[in-house]
Amino acid sequence: MTIKEEMEALGRARLMGIAERWYDQLVEGQIPSISLPTRTKHNIEYDDASEVWKYGDRESVRSAQTAKGASHLLKMAYVIGFLKQQLAENRSSTLREMYYISEGWKGAKFGAQDESNRVVEDLEILTDIQREIYHLRPEEDGASIFGPIRIREKTRRGVQEIHCQDNVGETGYQIPNNVDALEFLDHDAKFVIALETGGMYARLIENGFDEEYGAALVHLKGQPARSTRRLLKRIHEEFGLPVVVFTDGDPWSYRIYASVAYGSIKAAHMSELLATPQAQFIGVQPSDIRDYDLPADHLSEQDVAALKAELTDPRFATDYWREQIALQLQMGLKSEQQAFAARGLDFVTREYLPARLSEMGVL
Amino acid sequence: MTIKEEMEALGRARLMGIAERWYDQLVEGQIPSISLPTRTKHNIEYDDASEVWKYGDRESVRSAQTAKGASHLLKMAYVIGFLKQQLAENRSSTLREMYYISEGWKGAKFGAQDESNRVVEDLEILTDIQREIYHLRPEEDGASIFGPIRIREKTRRGVQEIHCQDNVGETGYQIPNNVDALEFLDHDAKFVIALETGGMYARLIENGFDEEYGAALVHLKGQPARSTRRLLKRIHEEFGLPVVVFTDGDPWSYRIYASVAYGSIKAAHMSELLATPQAQFIGVQPSDIRDYDLPADHLSEQDVAALKAELTDPRFATDYWREQIALQLQMGLKSEQQAFAARGLDFVTREYLPARLSEMGVL
Repeated sequence: MTIKEEMEALGRARLMGIAERWYDQLVEGQIPSISLPTRTKHNIEYDDASEVWKYGDRESVRSAQTAKGASHLLKMAYVIGFLKQQLAENRSSTLREMYYISEGWKGAKFGAQDESNRVVEDLEILTDIQREIYHLRPEEDGASIFGPIRIREKTRRGVQEIHCQDNVGETGYQIPNNVDALEFLDHDAKFVIALETGGMYARLIENGFDEEYGAALVHLKGQPARSTRRLLKRIHEEFGLPVVVFTDGDPWSYRIYASVAYGSIKAAHMSELLATPQAQFIGVQPSDIRDYDLPADHLSEQDVAALKAELTDPRFATDYWREQIALQLQMGLKSEQQAFAARGLDFVTREYLPARLSEMGVL
Repeated sequence: MTIKEEMEALGRARLMGIAERWYDQLVEGQIPSISLPTRTKHNIEYDDASEVWKYGDRESVRSAQTAKGASHLLKMAYVIGFLKQQLAENRSSTLREMYYISEGWKGAKFGAQDESNRVVEDLEILTDIQREIYHLRPEEDGASIFGPIRIREKTRRGVQEIHCQDNVGETGYQIPNNVDALEFLDHDAKFVIALETGGMYARLIENGFDEEYGAALVHLKGQPARSTRRLLKRIHEEFGLPVVVFTDGDPWSYRIYASVAYGSIKAAHMSELLATPQAQFIGVQPSDIRDYDLPADHLSEQDVAALKAELTDPRFATDYWREQIALQLQMGLKSEQQAFAARGLDFVTREYLPARLSEMGVL
């Protein structure tokens, strides 16, 4: 069995285990229930072993004692049945499709997709298996990688071996939804740089930054999809390559870095699979806005509120971030990564990135 | 010279022509000016020859008589110089980067990116050359194609020949920004189906719809980028393949179809390059919502307003659209393309699409 098949078998067994437990509870005259960690910022704890943020001990119990709880367990039972069928038939579907499929589930029909997504997250936590293994896709992904890395992908049309510089178009290799269906064969890279915007990704490709510095370029497309974070994690682990993250210089972009490095609150149960704690933030740093006198916009009220929220976010509880965020609040400014273009189209690849990379000990 | 090089030489000459005309105007003691077609829905006319909607005769003149007009021409002069340099150095940049580069243009600095984008559109109209030829990129593109089509792409690393089924990952071939740098070599397709959502694109790939029906699948990613529309136009013209468009069943999605078939008001000056007048709308039709009893949402006030606006949009001035829009306003409902999943994951590829395609005479 391949790792993928083993994971699927394990997932199937654990899904069935949830239903069996309900059966036993009923047989023993108990009320069927499940218990899940509370999913709030206050129930996230740093795990020394894995170096990522995970849910703490606070749990909330859902039982069939109330009509609301019973309906929740009923819906979960239908989803378990649906996923079991997908695994049996080797089919897949989007989260949106599953929501529509519930139209046929009578009393277990979902009122909104948030609700069905939530049940999927619950099942990920209960089985400790990510939804990709159950063949559940998000709507969109389409992030890309361009660099000296050779991968093997099993597609419906057989196995493809693709070199992410030599066998791809100028936009690179598009990351599939289930990264665990990929094999990373070999590479000639020194580090991985993850980029928030398509503009900067194209800039580094055009300037030949990948060749000159042995960089594997990954386009995050804003807040990265799970598949993109999983890819970064696997490249880091399997090739032992350093990962740096280059985003805009605003509070929302810092959260993009945080989700790569420490995982997101929403998917804290997947942190070990998705997070790359060793990933370093390269910029745009508030101090860069000052030091390079970058074109900047004034912080909006929402920006200021987001920065202040980050000061209480465990993922930003370091001296580095406290200083940078304090500086930004004091300056009242934010800059985009493409603002470096004000100093010429080559400045970012000839001056800024090399300087930062050696400063960070990557080059 | 390749077609691309010829276009670039032509573009360069026409850009210079604008500046030369200003020079001559000054020498002759006239006030420098440019005149452009008025860009509103009311100045769009159907062009029988090309079968697309284009700007009519209404023109607005911009002259240096006023400080505002003079500053506009100054900025345009700087952009012309910048594009001339990009062509000379074979460099490219994003619209965003050009906006930032104007930081160094003193009095010609743009106040916002809308303004610099607008000047680029003006230059496209004045030179009748699209910005891609001047190496100006948008921020993002990343739409994809999956199907029996073989293309040749010239990249920084040499020429790649790619079969869009056999040499790509499961997400297909990512469409580059400048489609005119591609050659379409040969194909084994019967038609092209353009899809609004990534969910439906993945559904058709998983269900093997491309193989079973000889379909080339194009993911529009919502309102399609110019590169995606250019690709559809070229495949239709060069391979003589029918193009059908499959979107959600709401007024915003009908505009996606309209921009593929008739061009957009914003880019009416590019209609001949971007629009595929023979493209047919496959669905989701309001009558489908009724006939298939699809899961639907109620129309919002904005939806109703948008539908009514479409009744006065020349691009929707056909009996077919009047009937469908009238029916939708009467039902007060809209459905997404993935709503077909309520009838099972195969319904859309086994029942709906084949029925519609033969109805439309494509199959």
